[in-house]
Amino acid sequence: MSIDQEDHIPPVLRVKRMGIDTYQEPVVFMREDCHVCRSEGFEVQSRVRIHNGQHAIVATLNVVGSDLLEQGEAGLSESAWKMLGTKEGSTVHLSHPKPLRSLSHVRSKVYGHELTGESLREIITDIAAGRYSDVQLSSFVTACAANRMSMSETIHLTESMIEVGERIDWGRTPVVDKHCVGGLPGNRTTLLIVPIVTAQGLIMPKTSSRAITSPAGTADAMETLAPVSLDIDAIRKVVDMEGGCVVWGGAVRLSPADDILIRVERVLDLDSEGQLIASVLSKKAAAGSTHVVIDIPVGPTAKVRDERAAMLLRDNLVVVGEAIGLEVSVVVTDGSQPVGRGIGPALEARDVLSVLRNEPGAPRDLRERSLALAGRILEVAGVAPRGSGERRAEETLQNGTAWKKFHAICEAQGGFTEPPVAPFTREMTANRTGVVMSIDNRRLSRIAKLAGAPQDHSAGLEMQVMLGTEVEKKQPLFTIHAESRGELDYATEFVLSGPDIVTVEAE
Amino acid sequence: MSIDQEDHIPPVLRVKRMGIDTYQEPVVFMREDCHVCRSEGFEVQSRVRIHNGQHAIVATLNVVGSDLLEQGEAGLSESAWKMLGTKEGSTVHLSHPKPLRSLSHVRSKVYGHELTGESLREIITDIAAGRYSDVQLSSFVTACAANRMSMSETIHLTESMIEVGERIDWGRTPVVDKHCVGGLPGNRTTLLIVPIVTAQGLIMPKTSSRAITSPAGTADAMETLAPVSLDIDAIRKVVDMEGGCVVWGGAVRLSPADDILIRVERVLDLDSEGQLIASVLSKKAAAGSTHVVIDIPVGPTAKVRDERAAMLLRDNLVVVGEAIGLEVSVVVTDGSQPVGRGIGPALEARDVLSVLRNEPGAPRDLRERSLALAGRILEVAGVAPRGSGERRAEETLQNGTAWKKFHAICEAQGGFTEPPVAPFTREMTANRTGVVMSIDNRRLSRIAKLAGAPQDHSAGLEMQVMLGTEVEKKQPLFTIHAESRGELDYATEFVLSGPDIVTVEAE
Repeated sequence: MSIDQEDHIPPVLRVKRMGIDTYQEPVVFMREDCHVCRSEGFEVQSRVRIHNGQHAIVATLNVVGSDLLEQGEAGLSESAWKMLGTKEGSTVHLSHPKPLRSLSHVRSKVYGHELTGESLREIITDIAAGRYSDVQLSSFVTACAANRMSMSETIHLTESMIEVGERIDWGRTPVVDKHCVGGLPGNRTTLLIVPIVTAQGLIMPKTSSRAITSPAGTADAMETLAPVSLDIDAIRKVVDMEGGCVVWGGAVRLSPADDILIRVERVLDLDSEGQLIASVLSKKAAAGSTHVVIDIPVGPTAKVRDERAAMLLRDNLVVVGEAIGLEVSVVVTDGSQPVGRGIGPALEARDVLSVLRNEPGAPRDLRERSLALAGRILEVAGVAPRGSGERRAEETLQNGTAWKKFHAICEAQGGFTEPPVAPFTREMTANRTGVVMSIDNRRLSRIAKLAGAPQDHSAGLEMQVMLGTEVEKKQPLFTIHAESRGELDYATEFVLSGPDIVTVEAE
Repeated sequence: MSIDQEDHIPPVLRVKRMGIDTYQEPVVFMREDCHVCRSEGFEVQSRVRIHNGQHAIVATLNVVGSDLLEQGEAGLSESAWKMLGTKEGSTVHLSHPKPLRSLSHVRSKVYGHELTGESLREIITDIAAGRYSDVQLSSFVTACAANRMSMSETIHLTESMIEVGERIDWGRTPVVDKHCVGGLPGNRTTLLIVPIVTAQGLIMPKTSSRAITSPAGTADAMETLAPVSLDIDAIRKVVDMEGGCVVWGGAVRLSPADDILIRVERVLDLDSEGQLIASVLSKKAAAGSTHVVIDIPVGPTAKVRDERAAMLLRDNLVVVGEAIGLEVSVVVTDGSQPVGRGIGPALEARDVLSVLRNEPGAPRDLRERSLALAGRILEVAGVAPRGSGERRAEETLQNGTAWKKFHAICEAQGGFTEPPVAPFTREMTANRTGVVMSIDNRRLSRIAKLAGAPQDHSAGLEMQVMLGTEVEKKQPLFTIHAESRGELDYATEFVLSGPDIVTVEAE
C-alpha cells in the first residue's frame, strides 16, 4: 500500500520555556488539540521523547487546555529545559521513547527475583540518564528496600553507580575519607576531621551530601561557613592548595544515579542497606579515595539500632569495599543521643566552630568523637603509629593548627563567614523536676525539619540538656529556631500534640 | 514567647485555573517570590493543604518563576481545581498538611509486615482524599504487588475501598452485576447481558468504565447508542423504569481510592491479585450488587494466562465476596483472540446491535459468550433453574424481548441513536494464500487507537478473519476506519512498518 506523504504533518513543535519548576522530573506541556499529541497518540502522563538534533530527553506529558501555549508550541519545565539545553523558539522532534527494557528488570525485582549485574547496569544507566519517571523510581526504591538486596546485587549496584558518573584521580595515595551512617542529629565530625588530618599532611577531598531525611547534611552545615557548590576544577584547586576540602558532592555528579534515587528515598523516608552501601561506597570510589573510615552510631533511635546490626553492616561494607578496591575501616560509636547541641545547618556549624576554637563551653561529645575518628584515619593511612592516632589528633586541635587549617580551607572554597542566627525562637520546658531519662532522636529531627531545616539555614533546634541532666520544672529542655513564624508555630504544635520527646522522670 | 500577630501576613491567595492537566495528581502553582511560600516555608514538591472554607485538598507544589501568575495568585491544575470545587478569583487558605500517619503503615508493609484492617483503612482514606503524592502511591502499589497481600489484607482493603466511596441502596434484591477481568478487545458482552437479564425481571444497574489504555471501554461503546454520563439521580430513574442501565461509572465515584491506584498500576504495568480483587469487588458492593458473575478470559496474551491461575483467582474472588456479603460466581472463557468483529466504540456497538437484532451475520462468538454469562446470572439470581439459564437467555434474545428492552433502556438514558459510520476506510489484505495462524491483540489495539479510537467514535478496525480462517492472497484481513484521512494514513503506516499483525501461513 502506498502512503500519501504530503498528508502527514511531521511531529515537530517550537519549544517554549514555561518557567515551571517541577523539581527533577522533566515535564513537557502540550495543547490538548495539538496535532502531535493526536497523531502520535500521546496522552496525559505519557512519556515523550524530545530531540533537538543534539540532545534527547524523556519527559512526562501534561496536557494544557487553556491559552498557555500557541498552536505548534511545546512547553518545557525548568528541568526539561536545562536537560535539553535548547533555546526559545527552536524546533524539537517529539516521539514515543523506546520502551525501557530496564523496567522489566524492576518488575522482576518486585516479583522477588535477584537482579544480575547486567540488569542493574541497565537500570542505573537509565536512571542516571533521567529516563525514569518519579512513579518508576519509587517502585525501584520500594522493591529494593527492607534488605531485599543480596550481597551480589549490592556489589553490582555499587559498580554500576560508579560507572555512570565521573571518577576523580588525585595522582597520589593515600587519599582518605570518612562517612557516618545517618541517623544521629548534630554529628558534624567531618568539619573537624578534615582540618585535623589535612593539617597532618593527608589528602582528604571531602564531598558531602545535603540532608536526605535529616534536618541537616554536612554540606548544609558547611554551607553556612563557606561556599560548597564547587565544580571539579575548583575542588582540585582547593585540594592542591590545602590538602582537603568540604564541598557538596551533588555539583560533581560523582554518582548521578544515586542523587536521583536519594530524592525519592527522602520522599518515602525509606532506604535499604544495599542502596545505603552502594550510595556511600560508590561516592567514595568515584571521589578517588583509597582509605575510608566509617562511623556507625548505634542506639535505640539511631539508624542502626544494636551492636549486632552494626557488625553485620560493618562486614558488608568491608566486603563491598574490597570488591571495588577500597580499604574500609569501621568505628562503632554511641548513638543514643544527639551529638553537640545544635540540630540544623547553622546551629551545627556553631558547635563545630566552638570546638575548633577550643572554647570552654564547646560540646565535649562532638570533640571526642571527632578525635577518635580522626585518630583512626591517621592510623590507617600510616601517619600515626597504631594506638597513637587519637593523641596526635588532639594535639592538632589543641594547638590551633586545626582551626587555622579549617579557616584556610573555607577561604580557599570562596571565603569564611560566621553562621546566621534565626529571627524566631521558642523554648520548650520541662513539665516536672527530675532527670532526663530518654531523648527521641527521630522526633527531634522531625521538629527541626518542621521548623524549616535544612532549607532555612538558621532553623532547627538547640538542646539544653543531655541524658542524665538534672532539671527543675520549667527549665528549658531545648529551643526551636525558625526563620518564619508559621514554621515556628508548626514545629511547636507538633511537639505539644505528641508524647514527650525529652522525658523527665522524678528521682 | 508571645507572637506578634500583626507581623503575620495571612497565608491567603486568589486561585487561578491553569488549565494544566496533570492527570489525577493535584498540583498547585505558586510564584517563587510568593509571600505564602516564604512565610510557610513551602518549596518545590512540598505538599500544600489548600482550603476554601468548604473543601480542603492537598496538592504538590510546582514553583513558577515566569509571569504565568500575578502576585497574590495560586494556580491550580485541572484535578486540583475540580477536587476543590472553587471558582476563579476566590480566595483560598494555604498551610502545611498534617503529617500523614498512614505513611508509616506503608513503610511497615514495605518491610514485610501484614497490615491490620485499621491501618488499611487509614491508608485508603488518605488515598481517596488525594493526600498521597505519586511517589507515595507508587510505593504502596509496589509493596502490595507480586501477591504480597494476604487474604485478610485483601478483605480489609476491599472493605476500606467500599467505606471511602458512595454506596447505593436499591431497596430490593437481588441486584446483579458482571465483570470481565481485563484485556480482550471487542468483548462487549455487557451490552447484551443487561437487556437479557433485565428483560427477565432482574435489577442490573451497570456502571462501566471508559477506555483506559484500550481503543474502547464499555461506556465508550454504549455512548455511540445513548447518553452515558448520568448522575446518581438520573441512574435511579432509569433503573426504576427499566430495571437496568449501562452508564459511565466515573461520574458516580463508587470507589475513588481505586480510581487513583489504578492510574499508578497502569504506569508501572504492575498489579497485585489483592488489589485486582479489591478493585472489582469494592465497585460491585458500592453499586449495591448482591450477585456478581465474573468473566475470566484465559489466553496467552490475556491478563490471566492459564487455567490454574484462573482457578486460584476464582477461589479468592469467591472468598473475599463472601466476606463482604457478595455472592460471586466465576465463568472462565476463551481469551485467545478478539471477540466480535469491531474494535472501536461504534464498530463494537454495531456488533452488539446485530446480535440483538438477530441478524444472520451477527458475530457468533460475542453472542455465545453473552448467553453463557447471562445464563449464569439468571441461575445464581434464582430466575432460571440450574442448567437452564443459557437456554432462557437465548429465548429472550431470539424472541426480540432483549432488543426491545435494550432500546427502552437507551431511550430512558436519553435516547437511542444508531452508531456513526467512519468516512474513511482502508482494507489490509493477505499477502499470501493460507490459514490465519496468529493475531496480535496488542498491536490491533494500537492501530485502532492510531486511527482515532476511542475519542473518534467511528474510528477503529473491523476484523474480516479469525484464527483458523482460510484466506486467498489479497483477501481482506481487516479494515481500518477513521474520521480523517491523516489518521487513516497514520494507522496504515504503522501496520506496514512492522511485522505482520495477522499472520497467514501456507497450508
